[in-house]
Amino acid sequence: MRQRNKPWADDFLQEHRELVIAEPKENKSKWKEVFGNTNPIHLEIGTGKGQFIVGMAKQYPNINFIGIEMAKSIIVDAAQKVKDSEQKNVILLNENANDLEELFAENEVSTIYLNFSDPWPKNRHEKRRLSYHTFLAKYERLLTKNSDLIMKTDNRSLFEYSLVSFSKYGLQLKEVSLDLHQLDDPTNVMTEYEEKFSSKGQPIYRCQVKFQS
Amino acid sequence: MRQRNKPWADDFLQEHRELVIAEPKENKSKWKEVFGNTNPIHLEIGTGKGQFIVGMAKQYPNINFIGIEMAKSIIVDAAQKVKDSEQKNVILLNENANDLEELFAENEVSTIYLNFSDPWPKNRHEKRRLSYHTFLAKYERLLTKNSDLIMKTDNRSLFEYSLVSFSKYGLQLKEVSLDLHQLDDPTNVMTEYEEKFSSKGQPIYRCQVKFQS
Repeated sequence: MRQRNKPWADDFLQEHRELVIAEPKENKSKWKEVFGNTNPIHLEIGTGKGQFIVGMAKQYPNINFIGIEMAKSIIVDAAQKVKDSEQKNVILLNENANDLEELFAENEVSTIYLNFSDPWPKNRHEKRRLSYHTFLAKYERLLTKNSDLIMKTDNRSLFEYSLVSFSKYGLQLKEVSLDLHQLDDPTNVMTEYEEKFSSKGQPIYRCQVKFQS
Repeated sequence: MRQRNKPWADDFLQEHRELVIAEPKENKSKWKEVFGNTNPIHLEIGTGKGQFIVGMAKQYPNINFIGIEMAKSIIVDAAQKVKDSEQKNVILLNENANDLEELFAENEVSTIYLNFSDPWPKNRHEKRRLSYHTFLAKYERLLTKNSDLIMKTDNRSLFEYSLVSFSKYGLQLKEVSLDLHQLDDPTNVMTEYEEKFSSKGQPIYRCQVKFQS
């Protein structure tokens, strides 16, 4: 996502540490305590401006949502949405997906969402794609057994790549849609990107895969 | 495929028993002898009018191709194409895919193609889809270890269903394309359907999966 310089971002984040957690690595293995309940935790990697995670938090009040976004100038928009929503079951981390192991203990998360992730189209950047096998290994570690990863994207090449990567890693494909909005599913929560692309008639791809170990 | 009554079909097939094999079940485990060599055998299930299998036979002279088509009025068109091509590495069987076990011994085939198979869209007809698990079990039996199944279709729902069915059966996805003709692959041999649909701009879906046992 294109980032604009926002000089006020630091101040905003300092003032809203209940929404964008300071020193999140200290909460590793203690996220249930942060939420104050034992509800399952769902994790979105690359939360962007937060429309998806805030929409999900409203729709599923008995699930705790954590959104990770590494761009400070973008996560402030998400934080503003969380604040406006007054939802208590969603928090944000201004962190990098590479550091998942330092942020979550084993079995601490029960679902992962990858929404409109950066496609990194060049072959030499394959390792940066969030469906590359080294990331899948990170996800597997922090997920409970038989947990799902749910991916949505408008990028055909990334989706093709990801389906193969998931299969090679041994994940089982539970559901796939090659034109999500044909389904007219009222429970689908759209991201900002999704709203924009699907309104132009572009197909949105979605899959749900299961970690079996 | 819509079938037209062709009163001359019986006579034509009788006269071309070198192309459309009579009593093919008697050749089970002996297909190499029929071809007169030990080249690998590739099988297309639902050969239709034969453009694909004849094109493949020309492109890969060191592979033997067998096409199965249950509609007599359609297989005569394929037989005419084989005859015109003068290719000796392709034969046809006027048989039903349900009878694969009676037609081929274990490990007799090394690749299977499913091209534009009937989508059987109604849930109650799921068992008839050529990617239903009972068919996958038949394929697994006659294929050599680590063999591929390659599917092409323009039918989105059938493709979505098939990807999930393959994964649940334990097949590994090696390649997937959600818009085959974007690739402009000169080795891709088109079926009659494929030519028609892709010329209308419809995406053609393709996947290649591996039987690991």
